[in-house]
Amino acid sequence: MAETPLYGKVEEVLASEVARGDLKPGDRLPSEEELLTRFDVSRITVRRAIQNLIRREIVEIRRGHGTYVLPPRISQELTTLTGFVEDMDIHGRKASARVLSQAVVAANAIVARQLGISKGVRVMRIERVRLADSVPMSFDETYLPLDIGEQIVKNDLHLKPIFTLLEEKYGIPLTDAEYKMEAAAAAAPIAQALAIAEGSPIFRIERTSFTVGGRPIDYEILSYRGDLIRFVTRLARKPAKKQSQSKALSPRRR
Amino acid sequence: MAETPLYGKVEEVLASEVARGDLKPGDRLPSEEELLTRFDVSRITVRRAIQNLIRREIVEIRRGHGTYVLPPRISQELTTLTGFVEDMDIHGRKASARVLSQAVVAANAIVARQLGISKGVRVMRIERVRLADSVPMSFDETYLPLDIGEQIVKNDLHLKPIFTLLEEKYGIPLTDAEYKMEAAAAAAPIAQALAIAEGSPIFRIERTSFTVGGRPIDYEILSYRGDLIRFVTRLARKPAKKQSQSKALSPRRR
Repeated sequence: MAETPLYGKVEEVLASEVARGDLKPGDRLPSEEELLTRFDVSRITVRRAIQNLIRREIVEIRRGHGTYVLPPRISQELTTLTGFVEDMDIHGRKASARVLSQAVVAANAIVARQLGISKGVRVMRIERVRLADSVPMSFDETYLPLDIGEQIVKNDLHLKPIFTLLEEKYGIPLTDAEYKMEAAAAAAPIAQALAIAEGSPIFRIERTSFTVGGRPIDYEILSYRGDLIRFVTRLARKPAKKQSQSKALSPRRR
Repeated sequence: MAETPLYGKVEEVLASEVARGDLKPGDRLPSEEELLTRFDVSRITVRRAIQNLIRREIVEIRRGHGTYVLPPRISQELTTLTGFVEDMDIHGRKASARVLSQAVVAANAIVARQLGISKGVRVMRIERVRLADSVPMSFDETYLPLDIGEQIVKNDLHLKPIFTLLEEKYGIPLTDAEYKMEAAAAAAPIAQALAIAEGSPIFRIERTSFTVGGRPIDYEILSYRGDLIRFVTRLARKPAKKQSQSKALSPRRR
């Protein structure tokens, strides 16, 4: 067994205090001076330990304010089509929404292609911030065909998820969805909505949900705070024989 | 149909020149002055068109050098366990690797948990940059149990993918893998390896691959350039009846 370096020991003590809940999300980490005294180590050792905690996304530096404990990431299963409220329910988090805007807009080329309509056709756009235990988790831009969109916005979208309204109130069952996942830097409006710095990492999901007959019914761009979520799945190895077949799959369009 | 604004027309002309290949990845976009003359529009219109192309990740600004066309994102299917070379093959891209380091190191807590060994036990760590058509796409940190790791590093890892070596040379079939996907900001060493700015968006995949009997055999941290890749999949809606069951799933550990 190799010896754990000194900074590693300091790092582990602090990480386990967070894991045990002695230090809670939003708590300020003791200052560098306090840690120097407590652990009786050099300044460089304390700094290296804190750098590692930042890298592990256990704490974050708020410029001019100190180092703070981050909420733990949510590890969300990516195995079936689920909505935000269902996802947060599974993790025991209270989901809520803030509606920023709802408006009839002309479909741009991307929205038109995803909803299977012509460019310029009017659609309903709804912009919401989704929160988990009052922490803004994601900025959602939703596009719906105009007929169903006009029905949806008559409801209180602060309380009712769109998936639930579609399925339970309007009798439009969802069958499946196409997901595109990317890492991006937060543009100004998204950063503002999520109360993070411009350029912060965003886990972006473009999702087109379909109803019976393969009809696209809901196109969303979900911008999750990168530091608060991860998506987990399990994939099987394709038997060697079948692997050459996969090459025949046409690459998806840009 | 709503009227397309002027900046939208400029944007579409330039986007289609990229799509047609008149402007190729790595090409410099004409300067603001040249575009003003060519389209006979205001400076604010040209700027807004370029801002939209940047947002769509079709071009990027290189400080002090101008605006350049980006390579198109690779849309990679996330449906079966595949290695980098197989993935690039599907998209007709030539995969290669640069080995940055290979060393025997003590497993930290995360590596130990993923490989099912004790912390401090010696493992093989291999750091590689993976390239597609000579463009650095991802920085891969691979951890292997020492016995198999010592065999693997005897091979030329610039040429041979580890998956192929495991399966074809050492008779260790891969069965499946656990994926954890996150968005993160590029730390300095990763930014340097990928020739991008520190803090650029990274699509990070932690992947533990298993062989027969559920034995973990390969733990990797794959840091993809966020602007060059997206992952696509299709998920089915769980029948309403079964949805309450999913709440019984225990949340994954942090």
